[in-house]
Amino acid sequence: MLRPAEERIVHVPLGERAYDILIGPGLIGRAGGEFTARLKGRRAAIITDENVASHYLAPLMDSLQTDGIEAVSLTLPAGEKTKSFDNLAAVADMVLSAKIERNDAVIALGGGVIGDLAGFAAGIVRRGVRFVQIPTSLLAQVDSSVGGKTGINTRHGKNLLGAFHQPDLVLADTAVLDSLSPREFRAGYAEVVKYGLIDKPYFFHWLEKHWKQVFEGGPERNEAIAISCQAKADVVVEDERETGRRALLNLGHTFGHALEAATAYDSSRLVHGEGVAIGMVLAHQFSARLNLASPDDAQRVAAHLSEVGLPTRITDIEGELPPTDVLLDAIAQDKKVKGGKLTFILTRGVGHSFVADDVPPSEVASFLEDMRS
Amino acid sequence: MLRPAEERIVHVPLGERAYDILIGPGLIGRAGGEFTARLKGRRAAIITDENVASHYLAPLMDSLQTDGIEAVSLTLPAGEKTKSFDNLAAVADMVLSAKIERNDAVIALGGGVIGDLAGFAAGIVRRGVRFVQIPTSLLAQVDSSVGGKTGINTRHGKNLLGAFHQPDLVLADTAVLDSLSPREFRAGYAEVVKYGLIDKPYFFHWLEKHWKQVFEGGPERNEAIAISCQAKADVVVEDERETGRRALLNLGHTFGHALEAATAYDSSRLVHGEGVAIGMVLAHQFSARLNLASPDDAQRVAAHLSEVGLPTRITDIEGELPPTDVLLDAIAQDKKVKGGKLTFILTRGVGHSFVADDVPPSEVASFLEDMRS
Repeated sequence: MLRPAEERIVHVPLGERAYDILIGPGLIGRAGGEFTARLKGRRAAIITDENVASHYLAPLMDSLQTDGIEAVSLTLPAGEKTKSFDNLAAVADMVLSAKIERNDAVIALGGGVIGDLAGFAAGIVRRGVRFVQIPTSLLAQVDSSVGGKTGINTRHGKNLLGAFHQPDLVLADTAVLDSLSPREFRAGYAEVVKYGLIDKPYFFHWLEKHWKQVFEGGPERNEAIAISCQAKADVVVEDERETGRRALLNLGHTFGHALEAATAYDSSRLVHGEGVAIGMVLAHQFSARLNLASPDDAQRVAAHLSEVGLPTRITDIEGELPPTDVLLDAIAQDKKVKGGKLTFILTRGVGHSFVADDVPPSEVASFLEDMRS
Repeated sequence: MLRPAEERIVHVPLGERAYDILIGPGLIGRAGGEFTARLKGRRAAIITDENVASHYLAPLMDSLQTDGIEAVSLTLPAGEKTKSFDNLAAVADMVLSAKIERNDAVIALGGGVIGDLAGFAAGIVRRGVRFVQIPTSLLAQVDSSVGGKTGINTRHGKNLLGAFHQPDLVLADTAVLDSLSPREFRAGYAEVVKYGLIDKPYFFHWLEKHWKQVFEGGPERNEAIAISCQAKADVVVEDERETGRRALLNLGHTFGHALEAATAYDSSRLVHGEGVAIGMVLAHQFSARLNLASPDDAQRVAAHLSEVGLPTRITDIEGELPPTDVLLDAIAQDKKVKGGKLTFILTRGVGHSFVADDVPPSEVASFLEDMRS
């Protein structure tokens, strides 16, 4: 198959669940060929949202049809609220109606919401059918489409129901990023920064220098996406089901999820990547307060995120937030809890994060209280 | 821990998902001790049904409490209809409300319906929490509680949504079998016979001689349960996610599921084990018709099942059945389909079953048509 020179492939070596992530422009138009080259089945059920469908559903259907794949589609409303139990039922029913068998595929065409929902359905229909991710946001390309975590939200919190279900193929078509709003691109960029902060100080340094080119597109953008996918793949291969090291990927997420819950997942106030940006700064500040890291590191992280236009403080969120004890409840109900103590990703400095599973809730409460005033 | 002399342990060596099946009388009364000996968590959410709860919920709660485990329970109506998407949502919500963390457990106290539903919920809450099976029917003790298949039914068919989620412990309390109705015991016995028919001709022969003692209780019953659990464990260890050999466990099930669907899962007409009994005879007869096995084998299987009081013919089912093409649709919508051809478990004789994945639907249709008249 002819591939453009700038296309990158990241291989995720998970044994019989191994798969490739292709990164480059124009992949939606070549989806049919990539599908037939890798999957035995010849049927597909595409799950997408209203925003994405208007741009990319027809080209995807055309490409699949050209390569002899029978595809049907279901278009859902855009937004976090779509990750509901009712929609899981609707997607599962549609996939069964389409007579998708184990070697056929569910295709997620969209951002993290669609990927998480469609992946969960793919994981439970017939106890697992094939799954193809076509992420259309930067966030989904560098994070949620890699690693096999799928899920939906419940009244108890975000992603509290889900399955580990690895994709069989990820097509990250970078051409779609040109149509993202600046705010959406920035939100995805927060997750790119995260990989530097976890264990790649040189990558964070590179981003501080090259972030403008990453935002403008071109080779630096592809490079940043490929490094991010590779970073995530490395962690996932080491710890597929998050019993240890994989928890590092939650840097900024425990605080971030609590803030998302506190804004009732209202994306006009806060989107996931923005919550992660604030959460990462809080994780560095909290680490400084516990004398684990220098306050200068927190300052450096905040300065970079702020420079690209991301929020970095709880007070950057518009409108009222619930009291601190409600935030703390949301943190405690997050998945990352062990025997009453809280698990946080803390840091000893930029690029030196670690898992701390013995954080007393009272320390978190007084820290959050101070950060809000 | 003091164990009665007759207690048996079958170990299922699935690496980090390995677990023990304990078989013997009085295990419900000792559940707390077995739980704390093996699981780190100290909370449990018990899922049970109305019939089982009235006999065994209080003793189980007492035992857990004595050993310091905080337990809550949810009692659902008995019957196949309980394996619904709505109940999955209810169970998941209850487990989250109980703040069950990853090392805590969902406990299924009941038959296959409760085990499949509770296990599915355990598999998806926080992408997997611990799971303990306390099977209270013979069917569940020898089949559904071992092997990690969980699921619910949809309007498209049985068990079409589910997860692979291994239990961390199975407590098969054989004392509860004394209170089963003869019909329910017989239905479970069909699955015991299945293990002989798959690849243990000597076990089938032993059952032909000793079935009365198995029905009466005592050492032969424990022996039959232990051999069945070991047989299932052996297959599961070899092929945990059913990509090959595990399909053999479906002997009699493709026909059986279609007949269950045809009776709208009305247990007054047909229960699962009865469908499997008829299905196993049909699989042997169909194999004979395809010149794979002798008609004498089908006769021998039918004779034994009939002797213990199980149905062996489609015409043994009371009331009207839908036309053959509807049965065939149900077979085709069953999970065991590959690229349009049907996958059946066929046999070369008693104890010599094999997977055939190229059975033409037309052959099945004409066979079924003949078997109905």
